[in-house]
Amino acid sequence: MNFAGIDIGATNLKIGIVTDEGEVLDFIEEKLLSSKGPEGVVAQIVSILENYLRKDVEAIGIGVPGPVDRNGVVHHPPNLSGWGDVALAPLVGEVSGFPADKIFVGNDANLACLAEHRFGMGKGCRNMVMLTLGTGVGGGVIVDGKLLLGKDGYAGELGHIQIDPSGPRCGCGRRGCAEAFIGHKGIVQTAWDVLGKDKGSLIWGMIRESGFDGLSPKHIQSAAELGDPSAIKIINVTARRLGEFIASLVNIFNPEKVIVGGGISSFGELLLGPAREIANRQALKFLSRDVKVVRAKFYQKAGVIGAGILALEKGNV
Amino acid sequence: MNFAGIDIGATNLKIGIVTDEGEVLDFIEEKLLSSKGPEGVVAQIVSILENYLRKDVEAIGIGVPGPVDRNGVVHHPPNLSGWGDVALAPLVGEVSGFPADKIFVGNDANLACLAEHRFGMGKGCRNMVMLTLGTGVGGGVIVDGKLLLGKDGYAGELGHIQIDPSGPRCGCGRRGCAEAFIGHKGIVQTAWDVLGKDKGSLIWGMIRESGFDGLSPKHIQSAAELGDPSAIKIINVTARRLGEFIASLVNIFNPEKVIVGGGISSFGELLLGPAREIANRQALKFLSRDVKVVRAKFYQKAGVIGAGILALEKGNV
Repeated sequence: MNFAGIDIGATNLKIGIVTDEGEVLDFIEEKLLSSKGPEGVVAQIVSILENYLRKDVEAIGIGVPGPVDRNGVVHHPPNLSGWGDVALAPLVGEVSGFPADKIFVGNDANLACLAEHRFGMGKGCRNMVMLTLGTGVGGGVIVDGKLLLGKDGYAGELGHIQIDPSGPRCGCGRRGCAEAFIGHKGIVQTAWDVLGKDKGSLIWGMIRESGFDGLSPKHIQSAAELGDPSAIKIINVTARRLGEFIASLVNIFNPEKVIVGGGISSFGELLLGPAREIANRQALKFLSRDVKVVRAKFYQKAGVIGAGILALEKGNV
Repeated sequence: MNFAGIDIGATNLKIGIVTDEGEVLDFIEEKLLSSKGPEGVVAQIVSILENYLRKDVEAIGIGVPGPVDRNGVVHHPPNLSGWGDVALAPLVGEVSGFPADKIFVGNDANLACLAEHRFGMGKGCRNMVMLTLGTGVGGGVIVDGKLLLGKDGYAGELGHIQIDPSGPRCGCGRRGCAEAFIGHKGIVQTAWDVLGKDKGSLIWGMIRESGFDGLSPKHIQSAAELGDPSAIKIINVTARRLGEFIASLVNIFNPEKVIVGGGISSFGELLLGPAREIANRQALKFLSRDVKVVRAKFYQKAGVIGAGILALEKGNV
């Protein structure tokens, strides 16, 4: 059986057909037409979907970068301008003609967590934690085989655990959330702190073209792979924060695995190696004994797969 | 139907008969005979239990101040000397003659959480968080109506979430866990920091008899109730840490209520008032909207009631 998986990102829209074994067919990625608010995005989705709906799609799943309640209503996603409270399923149903009760909406980090749990690195786990490190830091938690949702469906905002009250200001308004250290912006801030004391770093040459504003985790990774001491220091500072944070998550959830995905996870063992060591040293002894900290299996298609699974599990009843 | 509830604390042993409506009958509290390890404690329990077992006890629940795995094995409780890995149910069964498969063991903070959830301030909640503030800071979480246990049963160690990496050393070895700020020792440390700058505080007079080492949260509370500015400052510093911590817990769990129990909760609104305000201001807006931060209903008997509920729910099948 086939399901449509739709991943609305802050900048890109991804759509694919997801099979009941987690395979993705006919994957498409486009720039999100975000300027016209939810109606514009829905029109874009439906124009792509029309080709898919001929292929016996049982149900549709949609991932959104923001809070989604248990009824599938999207609540003010911070990176989609013009979106307030949006009941996305009826909207897509109306425009596409697909039955709205076969359309399901979820938070993107939760869906990435579902993807890893059902078909990725978390397969077989009863309890796991997923972190997605990108522009934001998202979280998803599996408790006894099921997604942690909380009262309204908003649980799992792990990026907004405060890890240092004297840390940098986070997008959410408070200081020193995990996101403010191990999200894209936090890592770039750490980079500037380190680079300020090292005029000889390879990174300076790399950003000559893109300009200072173009400094990104990719430059840091490239420089680190060439052995640049400043780049390695930036990664180690980030790994320390990540490791301390994971130690707390282990103490909270006693998971079998902590899975790290999202763009920043492309640092791989450069980041996860030292983070794992710190997490194991800092978590309570009886909890850290055999926690595995691993890189996610899915990356570009995680959201589409997760959305497909949501459709499969909720729509195929 | 009746159940025996046993609460092994670091210093005291409490036992009572718990009815299936959560009432406690024949409550007894004694100094714990801790010097002879688990065998001594079991002998003490059984000598008290003998009087109870005539009263048609269906099952026995036991709470322990330390990690307990899903099989009921106690794992090195930090404040009970001579305890390693202890399979408590078979031990109590053997000495008492009560069937070991009708004896159930749980972590004390988890059992306090059960007590509040089934018969206290959390009644009717599907999702709630319980903090017990005392010598240590314990946690318990209800997810979709059930205790969060994690892989081994060790989940919910909320006191060991690191909230400030430059904070004081915690008993667990790392710096700045929540326990190191809002547990007994952390509050006393805050008190010394404040008192060092205020020779006029009422607290100085209160500890003249007990000596410096006798400074305890009770003195701070008494002085605050008399309007002593230093005592109020100590409580406000603690409330800020507590409020920031609760904001993170709200972001993680999206609970209906956060319930605060344990000895330190006797500060009441002096502590919870400002903590609630900070938590509401700092949690993500869509999450904090209607979270209730409330003081626990049960205090002295929380552990006994929770142990009785454990026996009721696991033993009455």
